[in-house]
Amino acid sequence: TMGSRRRLLLVSNSTLHGGTYLAHCQDHIRAFLGEQVKRVLFVPYALHNRDAYAKTAREKFESLGYGMDSIHESSNPVEAVRKSEAIFVGGGNTFRLLKALYDNGLITEIRKRVLEDGTPYIGSSAGTNVATISVNTTNDMPIVYPPSLSALGLVPFNINPHFLDPDVNSKHMGETREQRITQYHEELDTPPVLGLREGSLLLVEGDKATLLGVTGARLFMRGKAPTEHMPGEKFSFLLMDS
Amino acid sequence: TMGSRRRLLLVSNSTLHGGTYLAHCQDHIRAFLGEQVKRVLFVPYALHNRDAYAKTAREKFESLGYGMDSIHESSNPVEAVRKSEAIFVGGGNTFRLLKALYDNGLITEIRKRVLEDGTPYIGSSAGTNVATISVNTTNDMPIVYPPSLSALGLVPFNINPHFLDPDVNSKHMGETREQRITQYHEELDTPPVLGLREGSLLLVEGDKATLLGVTGARLFMRGKAPTEHMPGEKFSFLLMDS
Ligand SMILES: [Ca+2]
Ligand SMILES: [Ca+2]
Repeated sequence: TMGSRRRLLLVSNSTLHGGTYLAHCQDHIRAFLGEQVKRVLFVPYALHNRDAYAKTAREKFESLGYGMDSIHESSNPVEAVRKSEAIFVGGGNTFRLLKALYDNGLITEIRKRVLEDGTPYIGSSAGTNVATISVNTTNDMPIVYPPSLSALGLVPFNINPHFLDPDVNSKHMGETREQRITQYHEELDTPPVLGLREGSLLLVEGDKATLLGVTGARLFMRGKAPTEHMPGEKFSFLLMDS
Repeated sequence: TMGSRRRLLLVSNSTLHGGTYLAHCQDHIRAFLGEQVKRVLFVPYALHNRDAYAKTAREKFESLGYGMDSIHESSNPVEAVRKSEAIFVGGGNTFRLLKALYDNGLITEIRKRVLEDGTPYIGSSAGTNVATISVNTTNDMPIVYPPSLSALGLVPFNINPHFLDPDVNSKHMGETREQRITQYHEELDTPPVLGLREGSLLLVEGDKATLLGVTGARLFMRGKAPTEHMPGEKFSFLLMDS
């Protein structure tokens, strides 16, 4: 099938409270990339200051033993994807990120590299949102207007990163995260949404998906009650459409 | 000028913690609509269950002495706007609301009625977002894709309803509201954003704007430090472009 070579590491959040950038998932990143990958292509489009963002990411990946090129430093972003050994799409604003992927003509090329060539893809937060079928369940503010909410479609479902349980002590009247996802599922033909709590990651290898990290996930399916899932659980059934 | 007849009551939130639907702003609504208005046209598009939503709104407005028609019960929504004495656009999901306004061809007609005819407009939460120049600063999840993020443009700036100060005790790593608005202002040519806390309202009469309610507001202008504003303060300078 299309996704048989696919390898994805989809992280909920780049920084865990009290930790440093990517510290909570650095062992997973190393295990995922392994010894064979030497250089990683970074996509910093989700933040405004791409130079500063690339510096932060580069320092971290170099400390893990990987070289890093940032796509914004390339005169030909499509070619940079074509030649990449592995791709890391960082977090920030999902709308800004997705619009830049479209504006630079990268949607088709990244899909091809990941699904056909098996190029490893790491996404964090917004980088996880754009890896899924659409960005309909991002938490971000729509600060720019992308040409579509359809995303890379590396998996056939949605993820809600930074998933947050209701705060029973809050006096704020905005919708809870669960209410927002429920509103999404009021729309026809909407796919499952995996709520990845901060500290959680999803590892996708071909047609297998495994929940990693320590905080678990909550799964929302249209017309069904949500279900709780523990680290180590398999989500391969969510990949069946792809 | 275009906005000289305009009369808007833009409410941050429909329900305040511990209160009932519209209770915290009912005196403002009565003062705004006055004795002359007999019936209000309700726009329930922001919630999925329009019948239930219209029932809630109708009960509240009837208790205040106003009849209410819901636009979703009309076979001709444009005509319903054309004949309306006053318009109330309720909260819910901003993307769903804006898409339905476009799908029903209502953007031009509501603009015309409010800006040219002086038809009173009340918006709450999502209904406040769509009253502004665009929905770029909504808090809602993009569960559907409207044809544009441009909105009714009844005022030439943005509002962030349910504005929330940073929670210093939170361990959640998602962006604070202020960080999100700052990201918006990293984009070129972005207008001011008025952060309306829950319990706040903005009254717009022609070229005058006044902050009402009890909780105040925080104003964000591109390239400037944010400023705090108290109930009773005038925001007329924000209307100068219209
Ligand atoms: Ca984000
Ligand atoms: Ca809302």
